[in-house]
Amino acid sequence: MALIRKGKQFPWQHKHLLGLRELSTEEITYILDTAKGFEQISTRPVKKAPPLRGKVVVNLFFEDSTRTRNSFALAAGRLSADVIDFTQKASSVSKGETLLDTAKNLEAMGIDIVVIRHSAAGAAKFLSRNINACVVNAGDGYCEHPTQGLLDVYTIRKIKGSLKGLKIAIVGDIAHSRVARSDMWAMTKLGAEVIFVGPPTLMPTEVSRLPVSVSYSLDEVIEKVDVVNMLRIQFERLGGNPFPSIREYSHYFGLTVERMKRAKPDIMVMHPGPINRGLEMESEVADGKNSVILQQVTNGLAVRMAVLFLVNQAAAQAS
Amino acid sequence: MALIRKGKQFPWQHKHLLGLRELSTEEITYILDTAKGFEQISTRPVKKAPPLRGKVVVNLFFEDSTRTRNSFALAAGRLSADVIDFTQKASSVSKGETLLDTAKNLEAMGIDIVVIRHSAAGAAKFLSRNINACVVNAGDGYCEHPTQGLLDVYTIRKIKGSLKGLKIAIVGDIAHSRVARSDMWAMTKLGAEVIFVGPPTLMPTEVSRLPVSVSYSLDEVIEKVDVVNMLRIQFERLGGNPFPSIREYSHYFGLTVERMKRAKPDIMVMHPGPINRGLEMESEVADGKNSVILQQVTNGLAVRMAVLFLVNQAAAQAS
Amino acid sequence: MALIRKGKQFPWQHKHLLGLRELSTEEITYILDTAKGFEQISTRPVKKAPPLRGKVVVNLFFEDSTRTRNSFALAAGRLSADVIDFTQKASSVSKGETLLDTAKNLEAMGIDIVVIRHSAAGAAKFLSRNINACVVNAGDGYCEHPTQGLLDVYTIRKIKGSLKGLKIAIVGDIAHSRVARSDMWAMTKLGAEVIFVGPPTLMPTEVSRLPVSVSYSLDEVIEKVDVVNMLRIQFERLGGNPFPSIREYSHYFGLTVERMKRAKPDIMVMHPGPINRGLEMESEVADGKNSVILQQVTNGLAVRMAVLFLVNQAAAQAS
Repeated sequence: MALIRKGKQFPWQHKHLLGLRELSTEEITYILDTAKGFEQISTRPVKKAPPLRGKVVVNLFFEDSTRTRNSFALAAGRLSADVIDFTQKASSVSKGETLLDTAKNLEAMGIDIVVIRHSAAGAAKFLSRNINACVVNAGDGYCEHPTQGLLDVYTIRKIKGSLKGLKIAIVGDIAHSRVARSDMWAMTKLGAEVIFVGPPTLMPTEVSRLPVSVSYSLDEVIEKVDVVNMLRIQFERLGGNPFPSIREYSHYFGLTVERMKRAKPDIMVMHPGPINRGLEMESEVADGKNSVILQQVTNGLAVRMAVLFLVNQAAAQAS
Repeated sequence: MALIRKGKQFPWQHKHLLGLRELSTEEITYILDTAKGFEQISTRPVKKAPPLRGKVVVNLFFEDSTRTRNSFALAAGRLSADVIDFTQKASSVSKGETLLDTAKNLEAMGIDIVVIRHSAAGAAKFLSRNINACVVNAGDGYCEHPTQGLLDVYTIRKIKGSLKGLKIAIVGDIAHSRVARSDMWAMTKLGAEVIFVGPPTLMPTEVSRLPVSVSYSLDEVIEKVDVVNMLRIQFERLGGNPFPSIREYSHYFGLTVERMKRAKPDIMVMHPGPINRGLEMESEVADGKNSVILQQVTNGLAVRMAVLFLVNQAAAQAS
Repeated sequence: MALIRKGKQFPWQHKHLLGLRELSTEEITYILDTAKGFEQISTRPVKKAPPLRGKVVVNLFFEDSTRTRNSFALAAGRLSADVIDFTQKASSVSKGETLLDTAKNLEAMGIDIVVIRHSAAGAAKFLSRNINACVVNAGDGYCEHPTQGLLDVYTIRKIKGSLKGLKIAIVGDIAHSRVARSDMWAMTKLGAEVIFVGPPTLMPTEVSRLPVSVSYSLDEVIEKVDVVNMLRIQFERLGGNPFPSIREYSHYFGLTVERMKRAKPDIMVMHPGPINRGLEMESEVADGKNSVILQQVTNGLAVRMAVLFLVNQAAAQAS
């Protein structure tokens, strides 16, 4: 917290975290620095700090996610906030009006921060325009999942010191991945070079306009990258037949022990979880010495504490 | 809290809140006055007060209701109680014995207050007779939903100063509405005149014995009422074909912009939520200057804090 | 707590509670003595003690159980811990890898105690070998449910003074009962004689190697036992047709008013709950003067507080 008051001016002005695309390099760095200050709270015997005492954080998840939801709940609790779970079945929000009504009702109940996950791109932004509470995007359609992007760059920065000049491959179903997009914005803003790797059928149509290069072959890039982030194949989101078979996908795009032999010795292996073992990567790789997958989970807590803390601070300053 | 100790004697003696029918005007007024004292807690930066610290409030909902359940959870949390969610599938309570066993088990676990919603009229009363803990009725069948009635009169009193002499229309599916019944008791006890408005098929059979007048035409009453409370059409409760079509219902009983033109300029528009927009009322009305729908939600928290506080006080005095 | 520091050495060394089979008589007694110290917390106006403040307890239930889950949640809350509910659908853990991944993720989030219920025998043990957090078994397959065994012997000891020399019948579906197994270990270690009573089809195949005697007739044993524990018939676990009809089962193995007339006047009647009234026992017996069923629920809280407290203490000493 001393960290926050060191500067003459509070350098974070946003009461919402909607995406990383619109943040400056300085703002992203500031969140990471704040997270660093919070990291040690989780290692204390009493894992509690008081900054959000008496505040209410609502988990408003229209798509279920035990892990992200509980990571936010733990982060909020660690800052002494009360957490209310407003998880809803998708059916009850088929109309945009209903999301707005839900938002207005939450606001009327005097809640302070809404953490929202929704299948529609832009849902968090829509909410932020119609509610006085702080809004944190926990995933909107295929658009952004900013706290995942932040925890990914936090993890890389912690291990590599900086992202400047690093080559990072993001591998798999790019088209349906909000993680890929948030990663891309955060990584490139912090100076890394991002390569999207996957079959053409899983590449987003707008890829030529994004600040990335593209490869259709993991074998082509595995030797030269410093970090590889293996996306989860989300069977529930895949319509049609984007690849002939799971075996074929795994053959071309799975991170196998064989492929790892050709990688840099200090390559960082990342995955947003939960892993489909044997599909995106072999178990030996997931549990191997290059894997930082569990560190990502740990860092996710610190990053989410920082985000909840900062949006609340910005709201307090604004009022 | 000073409010409470001002009088010579604690004027609230009930460790349960089962319905408004059995309360005196003075008792209802006392709850509203207590709620007024709690209202400001929700506007503080630290939205916490200590009176229920170390107490356990159980949400025992046999019918789901995200809003009411979370409103009680927030109210309890704001008073520093611990909240346990005992939401159960209806199937597990097909026999009365099971509700009793559930109650006895909760009591044996040392919980202090049970907030119960159940599809059977009288469920809360049944519980209160078989358990030492305080019981708060959050809706029993078509019988009562007392905290909704209280928040409705609280909202009217706050805006109009008093309910004395006010004409209030309650519109829609009266037969299946516990809100209509709790409203009726609270409003008439506080001096208002209540008119039930709806098609004959949705009027309760016992209506002639209730302290209300009846109208089958919203057009007939819209010009003369000070408050209109539009009930939610609960499709899940409607068997048979109580009205020819939604469009027909909406035509005769929907609160349209057109109808609002004929109403008093300061008419209060209420709805217990969630709104079926375009059915009970047009969106322009729901979001218009006469609507107090979101204030109802805000006031619901203060009223529920007051109720939890008062039943706990009464239990402490009794023991 | 004074109790804990009285001895020269902390006599509890386990950071997990996996089963009662592997515990010594002294260790079981020590848990019971600790529970006795915690029992009075639940009778205070402020039912809170600080020993687990800032600790996170995760309820990881792969089989649902409202009662046991909430009993642990209340026990953890009463010790000021934060509780996260990680209840999962069975489908997401079809592979052992996934349980391991879930465990590793929880650990990475910095949680302190995992309370696990799982349909596979050995799940808690598996978890304990792969995670740094404390693990408390809340039921694994047909193997053990140690806190139920502890609360049963706690209840008997409280009423009878000691288990030494007592004759205890455990009646019903022994084969599919983890309660029967945990009870057996705890009761025999504390000096009681245990008789398994049920039809041959519901007797475990390994029964001859267990420290119990067997009877196929409740009538044969009812006169001579000091305690009878009536197991719940768990219809969802019974494949095939283990008994001709419910009526037949009830006729031979139900605890009826008639049978109670032949029992010792001070026989203790126990049931792990929830009761199938009219099946395992008649309502008059369940609610009669010999029934200690609700005391079991109350004691369950004290026992679970003791277990959470002790495993956490052991973890703190080890680190």
